[in-house]
Amino acid sequence: MIEKLFARLQSYYDEMVAIRRYLHQHPELSFQEYKTAKYIADYYKKLGIPVRENVGGNGVVAKIVGKNEGKTVALRADFDALPIQDEKDVPYKSTVPGVMHACGHDGHTATLLVLAKVLHELRDEWEGTIVLIHQHAEEYAPGGAISMIEDGCLEGVEVIFGTHLWATEPTGTIQYRVGPIMAAADRFEIVIQGSGGHGAQQHKTKDAIVIASQLVLNLQQIVSRRVNPLQPAVVSIGSFVADNAFNVIADTAKLVGTVRTFDEKTRTDIEHEIERIVKGTCLAADCTYSYTYTRGYPPVVNHEEETNFLIKIAERVPEVTHIVEAEPHMGGEDFAYYLQHVKGTFFITGAKSEQTTNPFPHHHPKFDFDEKAMLIAAKTLGLAAIEYMKK
Amino acid sequence: MIEKLFARLQSYYDEMVAIRRYLHQHPELSFQEYKTAKYIADYYKKLGIPVRENVGGNGVVAKIVGKNEGKTVALRADFDALPIQDEKDVPYKSTVPGVMHACGHDGHTATLLVLAKVLHELRDEWEGTIVLIHQHAEEYAPGGAISMIEDGCLEGVEVIFGTHLWATEPTGTIQYRVGPIMAAADRFEIVIQGSGGHGAQQHKTKDAIVIASQLVLNLQQIVSRRVNPLQPAVVSIGSFVADNAFNVIADTAKLVGTVRTFDEKTRTDIEHEIERIVKGTCLAADCTYSYTYTRGYPPVVNHEEETNFLIKIAERVPEVTHIVEAEPHMGGEDFAYYLQHVKGTFFITGAKSEQTTNPFPHHHPKFDFDEKAMLIAAKTLGLAAIEYMKK
Amino acid sequence: MIEKLFARLQSYYDEMVAIRRYLHQHPELSFQEYKTAKYIADYYKKLGIPVRENVGGNGVVAKIVGKNEGKTVALRADFDALPIQDEKDVPYKSTVPGVMHACGHDGHTATLLVLAKVLHELRDEWEGTIVLIHQHAEEYAPGGAISMIEDGCLEGVEVIFGTHLWATEPTGTIQYRVGPIMAAADRFEIVIQGSGGHGAQQHKTKDAIVIASQLVLNLQQIVSRRVNPLQPAVVSIGSFVADNAFNVIADTAKLVGTVRTFDEKTRTDIEHEIERIVKGTCLAADCTYSYTYTRGYPPVVNHEEETNFLIKIAERVPEVTHIVEAEPHMGGEDFAYYLQHVKGTFFITGAKSEQTTNPFPHHHPKFDFDEKAMLIAAKTLGLAAIEYMKK
Amino acid sequence: MIEKLFARLQSYYDEMVAIRRYLHQHPELSFQEYKTAKYIADYYKKLGIPVRENVGGNGVVAKIVGKNEGKTVALRADFDALPIQDEKDVPYKSTVPGVMHACGHDGHTATLLVLAKVLHELRDEWEGTIVLIHQHAEEYAPGGAISMIEDGCLEGVEVIFGTHLWATEPTGTIQYRVGPIMAAADRFEIVIQGSGGHGAQQHKTKDAIVIASQLVLNLQQIVSRRVNPLQPAVVSIGSFVADNAFNVIADTAKLVGTVRTFDEKTRTDIEHEIERIVKGTCLAADCTYSYTYTRGYPPVVNHEEETNFLIKIAERVPEVTHIVEAEPHMGGEDFAYYLQHVKGTFFITGAKSEQTTNPFPHHHPKFDFDEKAMLIAAKTLGLAAIEYMKK
Repeated sequence: MIEKLFARLQSYYDEMVAIRRYLHQHPELSFQEYKTAKYIADYYKKLGIPVRENVGGNGVVAKIVGKNEGKTVALRADFDALPIQDEKDVPYKSTVPGVMHACGHDGHTATLLVLAKVLHELRDEWEGTIVLIHQHAEEYAPGGAISMIEDGCLEGVEVIFGTHLWATEPTGTIQYRVGPIMAAADRFEIVIQGSGGHGAQQHKTKDAIVIASQLVLNLQQIVSRRVNPLQPAVVSIGSFVADNAFNVIADTAKLVGTVRTFDEKTRTDIEHEIERIVKGTCLAADCTYSYTYTRGYPPVVNHEEETNFLIKIAERVPEVTHIVEAEPHMGGEDFAYYLQHVKGTFFITGAKSEQTTNPFPHHHPKFDFDEKAMLIAAKTLGLAAIEYMKK
Repeated sequence: MIEKLFARLQSYYDEMVAIRRYLHQHPELSFQEYKTAKYIADYYKKLGIPVRENVGGNGVVAKIVGKNEGKTVALRADFDALPIQDEKDVPYKSTVPGVMHACGHDGHTATLLVLAKVLHELRDEWEGTIVLIHQHAEEYAPGGAISMIEDGCLEGVEVIFGTHLWATEPTGTIQYRVGPIMAAADRFEIVIQGSGGHGAQQHKTKDAIVIASQLVLNLQQIVSRRVNPLQPAVVSIGSFVADNAFNVIADTAKLVGTVRTFDEKTRTDIEHEIERIVKGTCLAADCTYSYTYTRGYPPVVNHEEETNFLIKIAERVPEVTHIVEAEPHMGGEDFAYYLQHVKGTFFITGAKSEQTTNPFPHHHPKFDFDEKAMLIAAKTLGLAAIEYMKK
Repeated sequence: MIEKLFARLQSYYDEMVAIRRYLHQHPELSFQEYKTAKYIADYYKKLGIPVRENVGGNGVVAKIVGKNEGKTVALRADFDALPIQDEKDVPYKSTVPGVMHACGHDGHTATLLVLAKVLHELRDEWEGTIVLIHQHAEEYAPGGAISMIEDGCLEGVEVIFGTHLWATEPTGTIQYRVGPIMAAADRFEIVIQGSGGHGAQQHKTKDAIVIASQLVLNLQQIVSRRVNPLQPAVVSIGSFVADNAFNVIADTAKLVGTVRTFDEKTRTDIEHEIERIVKGTCLAADCTYSYTYTRGYPPVVNHEEETNFLIKIAERVPEVTHIVEAEPHMGGEDFAYYLQHVKGTFFITGAKSEQTTNPFPHHHPKFDFDEKAMLIAAKTLGLAAIEYMKK
Repeated sequence: MIEKLFARLQSYYDEMVAIRRYLHQHPELSFQEYKTAKYIADYYKKLGIPVRENVGGNGVVAKIVGKNEGKTVALRADFDALPIQDEKDVPYKSTVPGVMHACGHDGHTATLLVLAKVLHELRDEWEGTIVLIHQHAEEYAPGGAISMIEDGCLEGVEVIFGTHLWATEPTGTIQYRVGPIMAAADRFEIVIQGSGGHGAQQHKTKDAIVIASQLVLNLQQIVSRRVNPLQPAVVSIGSFVADNAFNVIADTAKLVGTVRTFDEKTRTDIEHEIERIVKGTCLAADCTYSYTYTRGYPPVVNHEEETNFLIKIAERVPEVTHIVEAEPHMGGEDFAYYLQHVKGTFFITGAKSEQTTNPFPHHHPKFDFDEKAMLIAAKTLGLAAIEYMKK
């Protein structure tokens, strides 16, 4: 049956590419993916697969039952695009000005649609239930996962698998990781309220620039002194603005930054440490402040057993030549939320062809990926689903 | 004769006020004071006083010779206005949108014109030569003084006197100071060129915000550690700009600031210390920088003998009730240049009426001053000129 | 045969304890372990096992050949003590004032001696060669391992195993780790040469305390900004000394600190970054410095295959109840050097009895450990040796 | 009469030198000047001048009434020595090991004794009362002035004059200053109580060295940002001690420093600013601290009228060739306390002979001064007393 699955996927490869390119030409921004959602739903409807639309927003969920209901496995693909102008010179270039599939979600969608078609065709040969989660709005917090879960997309689901095509890793590579694979990505903002004045009369002021500068230095100690060195963490100030005339003392200064962590305790500790440092620094300077810390997606934490299971699966996919442990990525992913509810794993599927030497990174205006990788992703996800249901 | 001088000035007080108010309604920005210059020149021409126009720009210089040529004393008044919207509610409010006499130069001019008229009328009763320097562009570096001097306004002059009406000191007060009375006011700009990147990949970057913050703190040591505590000095950063997204590492950061000093060596030392600190901080951070230091006006340094002379003069002006030593002011004044060429002194004439409790500071949109102070300034300057020529 | 090995070790448990306690009462400092070395050598001589003394200093190496020479496996135990006053109240307390086995090396030695005795007794039942490395001077860099290796202790050896009894992990636990398990531990020293003077005349000085303080803060950026957050690293200043009267400006300040890393590139980068930061900070302050960086032991990097082999071995030791991956330890170990020459692994053997709730940490004056753990260590090392030689 | 005063002083010059040299050979430390006090009292007794001993400790106060009681003027001289080993090679070298008149108080005493003798001899020729205050313990806070005042030494006194011989200013110079002439000199101590630990486990500690370093930098902002630049002020940390092994995190760090100011408000502000900064820095670091601020002598603030009076007096002393305004000195003097109770002035009497090119500074083991200066001091003080009583 596995041979059939692989062969059938192979035979539909052209359709997979066609779907991907169509979507690539018609990208839609997060939370505005109305046409894409309809495209997906229509695909299922045409095949006679039951589909639920508007799940938690623009989400689409289809379900295929095999020989019996058995175990329930979910597979997830996201389908939103980015506010980037496509600068590639290819026939399937984006037709929407300023919007582009610059992260491969078009490929994720094409992969899952064609895999679903094959699984549907072979539904008498496997047991259990497969839930196909097409998620909108991955790129923009709070993301679509959280509302789709609230709207029931994980009902009855025992395990979930998802993957990300990765344009800078060679096609044929599968990267797995037990535990955290994508970081929590948070945002904070600090406004120092000093007391401005004439640049020559500093003693009558509270110099917001000096205070904020001191704060920037003090914040370095969070990572250097207060975080366990075995716990990766980043605290960066991306923006420091106190824009005045040269002969003035700044009244306020605004800092905006990001915190990246893999561990919930470290994350919370840093959130509080920042506040403590801001508070102490402002007490020392006799000034006031405002501080807001906004949580982005939590870290994606893969389950051990399911990840080890996925490794064994990947070994059986003929095109997979390298199975390696991933370094944790500092970027965020709202796949994180699914893994807070059910078991599962999120893995990386290499999508750089041999010919490509300097691939453009994700989110770049010239981003593209090796479409053959979609076939590898489809085989791995499909095999994972079927084998898991057998367990 | 002194009684006559005082009485005559008194009798023309209404004209003085009228001139001041006319100018107040028709302010012109630095280097654009064409009509004001013409107004001044016309005043002299009508009186038959020889006048030279376009001296070093819009400057106007008149000369009155007494019984004989004798000694030559210069009196100076500036006449430019500021780019501020007049928000006062008075009949003589500025008629020019966004331009305002917010520093009292209209008063300086009215004072000097009427004083010149009286000295001209009494020219048979005093000996020597009086040069009346009406200077344009005091508010904006490089200022008008330097070009008027180059154009000969100080030719033959032995001593110069000038005053500033001061709206926050009581009318009746004269403030003098031997040595530095107004600071040197310089400007510097530092651009830190780090190396930007993703906020989560700080180790691949050189974080311009952290480097610039460190620099701001290091610069504090100039005043706290490296300058003689008996030498007043200020080093202020007015502007710190590195404006980016929150999840980015800043590529560059720009600092702009001012240095205020009274002593040339301290001034030069600070200019060099800043550079050393920038250089060292950037070496430590393995980044590059640009640094520019622009000198504004030098300090106004009053001559001892002439200042002491002025004190004696002030004692003889009936309306002067308080003669006090001025604290040095951290603001700049291009009267400084005259005192680099000839002897003289610059003093402060209080111009706050008894009724005014919370006067608006100079450069404020509601700035105004007690016009009676013009009479005191006129008497003090007139008496100083006549007595000096007698010496 | 394995059952025999385990049973025989069990039967000699009392001797093991007796040896450990004798050594505990007679500790000797690193590089001065003459009597301990003789004790070890005599033990082998009495058994008729060939032994080489004074290997690379006080090291002792014995060799036991089984049925045939076969593969050669080394087992290592260190035997030096620490300059700490024993404050325990037990009959086997140290009899040497100020010297104490506060890290369990007495236990390591007893374990290996008794294991050697059993392996010798059973030598007709296993094949291959076992080398017993009793190493002096682990506690004090440069350590004994490096000179013993130079003196040939690893000749013919294919693989090496070593363990550390760990008083804060429960008896029954074996901790393994592929890759770095113990950190590189380096030392650096920075002397800031400013220019001292009177506390009230700071402008005539270069204040070494301010410069060194700034340096301490700048060094925080190495870990917070310049090291890959996925690479654990610590830069700590342990000592800051500028001891003067209150009304003086410090002429010099001395900083001494440590760097801990697991990765050679990170280690070298940090060594150079410190120097760059010192250089830049001193340039900014117009002062001079000296900087020395002394490398301690390299990280202990376990080999993957041998570590996985050890896990399988540990599963077969009846008393082993938990086999867990170790977090990397930031402490150093010169076992590191052996692993640079031959394959092998270094593991942790838990040695905290169930009754002990708050064990004293290693290097504490009241340190002690659960002697039963020696039996577990002996069984694990013995089984590892025998099974490895079979491969 | 003035001529007589001057002539008589001249004629006793040898005695003045003899007294000074006797005292120089027999120095006594602050608060232990028993013999010196007796020497002084005996001198007065021998002359029949009423004298009060043990005034506020070892102080001695004599009183001479002229033709009538009139006004009461006090003259003050201090008489304690320093814990310094005399290294001069002169016949009058100190005979007490480790104790030395290294600040000229021997000269002050000789000056006042001989002046008193002359004033006593001429007592029929002047009117008023002269109080001669011989003060112990000027060198060591809390000093003798405060207790002598409490014990009544200023009773009835209207004005006080005092001088300091100054070995680095030319003989013939009198330095005066209206307002602050000597600084307030305070001491502070800060102990940072962090939480120590192993150098490789910084996240379990609160690193006292990093916290204290940050504090040192933050304290720079007091002078650079929070003090009026026209108010001289120094905040220096003289000592920073956190002395540990290299691989440890410091548990505590101790800072000791000095504050120098001329203005009471600035002094108090700085005392409070330090505390605020310490408090805020420790809050930011989640640690505790202790802070003590110990006031030394207040600034010596000369009264305007009395200082101007003294200038006129000095003009009449034939040997006085230069009368110049003194720069404020950053050193302390407990003459300050007298001026808090009565009017008066403290001036500097130059005491460097023409032959001396590189005089040793005060408190130096080879310190000496030009004895001729004593005569100048005596004449100035004597004339001041007599003329003041005439007023």
